[in-house]
Amino acid sequence: MKEKVVLAYSGGLDTTVIIPWLKENYNYDVICCCIDCGQKEELEGLRERARLSGASKVYIENVIDEFCEDYIVPCVQANAIYENKYLLGTSMARPVIAKKLVEIARKEHASAICHGATGKGNDQIRFELGIKALAPDLKIIAAWRDKKWNMDSREAEIEYCKQHNVFLPFEVAESYSRDRNLWHISHEGLDLECPENEPNYDKLLVLTTPPTKAPDTPEYVTMTFEKGIPISINGKEMKISKIIEKLNELGGKHGIGIIDIVENRVVGMKSRGVYETPGGTILMEAHQQLEELILDRETYHAKKEMADKFAELVYEGKWFSPLREAIQAFIESTQEYVTGEVKFKLYKGSIIKAGTSSPYSLYNESLASFTTGDLFDHHDADGFITLFGLSTKVRAMKLMEASKEEALCGQQI
Amino acid sequence: MKEKVVLAYSGGLDTTVIIPWLKENYNYDVICCCIDCGQKEELEGLRERARLSGASKVYIENVIDEFCEDYIVPCVQANAIYENKYLLGTSMARPVIAKKLVEIARKEHASAICHGATGKGNDQIRFELGIKALAPDLKIIAAWRDKKWNMDSREAEIEYCKQHNVFLPFEVAESYSRDRNLWHISHEGLDLECPENEPNYDKLLVLTTPPTKAPDTPEYVTMTFEKGIPISINGKEMKISKIIEKLNELGGKHGIGIIDIVENRVVGMKSRGVYETPGGTILMEAHQQLEELILDRETYHAKKEMADKFAELVYEGKWFSPLREAIQAFIESTQEYVTGEVKFKLYKGSIIKAGTSSPYSLYNESLASFTTGDLFDHHDADGFITLFGLSTKVRAMKLMEASKEEALCGQQI
Amino acid sequence: MKEKVVLAYSGGLDTTVIIPWLKENYNYDVICCCIDCGQKEELEGLRERARLSGASKVYIENVIDEFCEDYIVPCVQANAIYENKYLLGTSMARPVIAKKLVEIARKEHASAICHGATGKGNDQIRFELGIKALAPDLKIIAAWRDKKWNMDSREAEIEYCKQHNVFLPFEVAESYSRDRNLWHISHEGLDLECPENEPNYDKLLVLTTPPTKAPDTPEYVTMTFEKGIPISINGKEMKISKIIEKLNELGGKHGIGIIDIVENRVVGMKSRGVYETPGGTILMEAHQQLEELILDRETYHAKKEMADKFAELVYEGKWFSPLREAIQAFIESTQEYVTGEVKFKLYKGSIIKAGTSSPYSLYNESLASFTTGDLFDHHDADGFITLFGLSTKVRAMKLMEASKEEALCGQQI
Amino acid sequence: MKEKVVLAYSGGLDTTVIIPWLKENYNYDVICCCIDCGQKEELEGLRERARLSGASKVYIENVIDEFCEDYIVPCVQANAIYENKYLLGTSMARPVIAKKLVEIARKEHASAICHGATGKGNDQIRFELGIKALAPDLKIIAAWRDKKWNMDSREAEIEYCKQHNVFLPFEVAESYSRDRNLWHISHEGLDLECPENEPNYDKLLVLTTPPTKAPDTPEYVTMTFEKGIPISINGKEMKISKIIEKLNELGGKHGIGIIDIVENRVVGMKSRGVYETPGGTILMEAHQQLEELILDRETYHAKKEMADKFAELVYEGKWFSPLREAIQAFIESTQEYVTGEVKFKLYKGSIIKAGTSSPYSLYNESLASFTTGDLFDHHDADGFITLFGLSTKVRAMKLMEASKEEALCGQQI
Repeated sequence: MKEKVVLAYSGGLDTTVIIPWLKENYNYDVICCCIDCGQKEELEGLRERARLSGASKVYIENVIDEFCEDYIVPCVQANAIYENKYLLGTSMARPVIAKKLVEIARKEHASAICHGATGKGNDQIRFELGIKALAPDLKIIAAWRDKKWNMDSREAEIEYCKQHNVFLPFEVAESYSRDRNLWHISHEGLDLECPENEPNYDKLLVLTTPPTKAPDTPEYVTMTFEKGIPISINGKEMKISKIIEKLNELGGKHGIGIIDIVENRVVGMKSRGVYETPGGTILMEAHQQLEELILDRETYHAKKEMADKFAELVYEGKWFSPLREAIQAFIESTQEYVTGEVKFKLYKGSIIKAGTSSPYSLYNESLASFTTGDLFDHHDADGFITLFGLSTKVRAMKLMEASKEEALCGQQI
Repeated sequence: MKEKVVLAYSGGLDTTVIIPWLKENYNYDVICCCIDCGQKEELEGLRERARLSGASKVYIENVIDEFCEDYIVPCVQANAIYENKYLLGTSMARPVIAKKLVEIARKEHASAICHGATGKGNDQIRFELGIKALAPDLKIIAAWRDKKWNMDSREAEIEYCKQHNVFLPFEVAESYSRDRNLWHISHEGLDLECPENEPNYDKLLVLTTPPTKAPDTPEYVTMTFEKGIPISINGKEMKISKIIEKLNELGGKHGIGIIDIVENRVVGMKSRGVYETPGGTILMEAHQQLEELILDRETYHAKKEMADKFAELVYEGKWFSPLREAIQAFIESTQEYVTGEVKFKLYKGSIIKAGTSSPYSLYNESLASFTTGDLFDHHDADGFITLFGLSTKVRAMKLMEASKEEALCGQQI
Repeated sequence: MKEKVVLAYSGGLDTTVIIPWLKENYNYDVICCCIDCGQKEELEGLRERARLSGASKVYIENVIDEFCEDYIVPCVQANAIYENKYLLGTSMARPVIAKKLVEIARKEHASAICHGATGKGNDQIRFELGIKALAPDLKIIAAWRDKKWNMDSREAEIEYCKQHNVFLPFEVAESYSRDRNLWHISHEGLDLECPENEPNYDKLLVLTTPPTKAPDTPEYVTMTFEKGIPISINGKEMKISKIIEKLNELGGKHGIGIIDIVENRVVGMKSRGVYETPGGTILMEAHQQLEELILDRETYHAKKEMADKFAELVYEGKWFSPLREAIQAFIESTQEYVTGEVKFKLYKGSIIKAGTSSPYSLYNESLASFTTGDLFDHHDADGFITLFGLSTKVRAMKLMEASKEEALCGQQI
Repeated sequence: MKEKVVLAYSGGLDTTVIIPWLKENYNYDVICCCIDCGQKEELEGLRERARLSGASKVYIENVIDEFCEDYIVPCVQANAIYENKYLLGTSMARPVIAKKLVEIARKEHASAICHGATGKGNDQIRFELGIKALAPDLKIIAAWRDKKWNMDSREAEIEYCKQHNVFLPFEVAESYSRDRNLWHISHEGLDLECPENEPNYDKLLVLTTPPTKAPDTPEYVTMTFEKGIPISINGKEMKISKIIEKLNELGGKHGIGIIDIVENRVVGMKSRGVYETPGGTILMEAHQQLEELILDRETYHAKKEMADKFAELVYEGKWFSPLREAIQAFIESTQEYVTGEVKFKLYKGSIIKAGTSSPYSLYNESLASFTTGDLFDHHDADGFITLFGLSTKVRAMKLMEASKEEALCGQQI
């Protein structure tokens, strides 16, 4: 009996060509796995396509809810944003995919997992670190880095397919390199490769209306959270995946969540991308807005630092790591009281705050007006400033004194 | 001869009433100092008003350029933003004011400095820490916290003025508590005191058109920087204060830079404010956009952490502190090559990226296309991932092994 | 019926005098509470002493095990050390005391809690923040800061006692200001107030033999930990308080754990103290030694930063805060595999490492010798260094190029 | 004319064998460079040895003073310690060596630099990142990772030498892998490879007497610093290299500065080493002791974080990087007033503090006793604690209230 390999399969040319290639070069039975994180229409016809290309078995796993609950929610709770802008859409999806690939590999007693990510990107690292963490004994085949791989263009791949009796209607035309899931879509390549170029949003965007073409009328949206988890939209409770879908619809309509970034990849180079995250942008902003009201100053500031570290870890493919777990434990601990309602007005690319409330707000009317209350007296500030500024004053006096002494010494000589 | 006090004077009722109060309660000669950081029309008639209220001398010092060069530029270079949103407009102005007050106090041989900031805010701390650092021997009088102070409403202040023969046309009507300078204007109080309320931007805004009323046509703006310092706008070189003015005009027109925040004050309470920073928002975003292209990953990430610490220090009134100096030295060191051009499209509250370039860009075309170049080979990623993921794999193997041993021990018993 | 106050009572003159003072000035029933965290002989005769001084009730609560399990263990797991040296002996004890005072106040329906910490130290803050967090409605009386308090020397206090018919044999002689519990003893004051003075350890030390007088023969000690918690010493399992006692004995004998520090107090001044933490020093060193073997690089480094933050929080009296809880959740998550054995040799003030082992060690013989193994190949380092140094090289090339262009431009002009 | 290669040459077998190997495999003229950072006796006979092995030219560059001033001093000022223990002895020396190799390569118009560091260690990274940063156009040959390299034992190397007519008296016996310079000596390998083993200090140590054999009489040492730079020992001014030499002598005599560590290498594995840094340990401790007295709390704490980052960078070979420069600018800014005297007592492995003084001390007698001074009043602490604990109290009240409401809601249902 042949050994089996589990292939991370997207249905596109790049992963389809790997099926005959694996059979020829490794003599494996190829099990194609498409892990559905919400990539939508891309899944159509995928099962048949894999079969026609020589797959011995095809899995299509819908992991959307797991993706939302176990990967997106922690990132939202952390307010994890990479390099000020990137909401980690692709980064968060890779570990859930790696996990599923390993599960299927175990179930099928496969001896290897194969992926088609390129040797210049972050995804190879995210897939492979996930697999190493969950199944260190499994062989990993990175097709594009494999010594037996020698295709370096779409034409070469199509030619290879034909030679191996795979006749599929792949387009030869170049397009943006894209990655899509429930949370976002990313665009790289072509004219974007030059950071001097302004992106042509009319042509580029998939999920979002360009701000300039968005409706002239603003639209309100209300979101509620419980312990940092989104619960409802406009008063209607729904599961997280539905909330994100709804927010994608609203955010997409109003031109929200388009970013244009030059980011630092793990592999040491800068790359330029445009990302659309219409719903995610709203959701994260709402969560953070709520935290403003509820977290005390020190927790808020410390959590901000943790958010950056969390984002870096996720970006670097270190989801299945003790440090990610530890930071998540920290984050979860802070979410105990992050419960309340946030209202936004969406308008042509802008999220305009329209009110926030929470039963656990550390700001409220009784506090705002305690001019003469017993919590705080203007005179308390005297003592506070004396102590808060004590070392400043002591230091200034000391330096004054020392410079006088120096001046004196100078004179004496 | 009487002792002298230097009073931080704004021309409003709150500081005007302090003039007769200081004379009555402390028997000082009162020297009024208005430090002009760009508060515009507020300065009209101020000199006369001070004289009529009993000031023995009035200084009006235009420090706009010093404010820009020594306070705003370091904050822009740091990308210093407090709690994700606040661009420190008031915080940055306080130390330059404190410095000028001390300079005048020294020149006039005054024995005290007086300010009219309230006992619940941050400004008292910023003024007093500044004075303590620069002139630890000077007495500080915080009128509102003074035991001899007993006015707690505008009516009481006006009444006190009248009793002391100061007949000025002060308005009794309550309004938002505002602070304005070249960089921004802040609004607090009234309906804003309840975070559930949506601000009424049509009534509230001073520098900015509400996004919904901004022009339907986007407008491009190009900015150049040299070593992290803004140099020109749309190809025209100008000094920093002029650049900010110009950006205020453009940003104000297009509804840019309005934030609505619940922030954590130094004195331990949350407060809610709306800030308009039209030009500053554009300038900071442009600077950061440029850094994306130029700074290496590690510097970029480390600088981000420093930015938060810098913002905290500035917010807390610790401008004149060794730590601020040290962080500024760090920041300046990173700006050596932050030179280049940034282009934005402004539209109804949104800043849309429209291209960035720099002679020191670490991203450029020759790098983007080095598929087969000598800088990087797909296969290099093999070794990289092996080592980058080594501890992940070793750990996973170790845990596997340990759990097997445990299972084995279990069986043996 | 009179209202009741719960007094944090140590048995010394400073807190004894507060009993009649509270009765006279506040007309309270005074309930004395001595919270025993391991201060040893100091407790003798305390109950009677309180009664003779006018207490209506006396509680002596042994909280040693709670202190160890809920306060010391998290600090050990965190490796929490303030300003590189201070093992937080006093800081950790304050919150457990505050918690007990609140519990008793609730049980007794008291309306206030009183403590005798001075207005210049950290302890007042630690007590009061603890009480505010756990019982924000309770009144706090800080006797020494009270406006009705007017004693400023031991003589005055003794005199006050006598006037109120409290005739106790208090010593008038000045001594070091000391705080002792199971974990440590601190010394402040007298000759230590001048940092230029070398401490006279022969006179000063209570728990520890001076290194120069410690035995000439080294002694081995072996400790085991399970999930970061100390379990046994020299092969003998015991509860944590017994482990610390045993380590105090061993460490004390061999001159371990004496520090001499100038520390930064919360209230803005520097203070100088000598602390003896014989057992704690060994325990923390052992825990950290074990973590070296078990934690991966990134967790180890991130945890180090958290340790500093944790130590600061504990030092500042913020034990009962959401941030302390969040950091503790982080720390606990990292302790899952901190299981193993550490061996030390104790000798005249030095802890000499003598071997460490763990079933979860990420270092082990099979790893150390994998010259030709499949985990790692010398050539893998090629790819690693290429990518690890990619941005360094790109940057260097870019700067070379830019400087050539500049030179060229220079020539052309 | 042949192309030239610059070889980092130590005189040992491992780098000597590279000379004929480079000639055979690359047909280069080999220029041997021994960069003397204080490795002492190891340099004897080195020039002749290189010549006999086929080098066309030999450089022996004494860089000890440059090493001290430009590499050691910044690390001392930063208090840079890797993973709590390692004083970076080897890490600091690599960049100065890389810099010199590049200088010589430029002078000789060489086209490559070759080093003999192994593929599992940190040094390869440190050398190569240094070269990449300073001369990105130079080819790097890492002999041990080279595909043409096939020697994997001392015997094989000696055999190769003989075959190429190099007859040198190399010892075959295995020994610890060592690296020595003015600052330290490291030991790895053999019995140390098992972390369970206690090191045999009697056999292992080179610079230091084992504590148990150190003199029975303690010895005092006094050091002065100016702006963070060591200036004199025991009242005698000397240049830094002489200070370190003197401290090595004293520290070595008294058993100071031996560490036994399991560290995390850059390449993802843990390694175990014993390091002797007798003088360096004293010097760093003294510097830090002085800073305790002089730096304000916030600078001290922030600098501690920077120290860790600085140490990581140096450890990782990123000396010539913008981030190292930026952190160094930060550090230098903090050293302005780090001037004063530190006294230690050295005794059998322990450094015992014996007094510190500075004209810029923020602690001094007048401050310590200001019970009734105008800098600080016990009552000021009232206001301080009210504000410092305000959010704690507000939060506690809010949670109390919220839980009452919940309870009420519960009842109503």
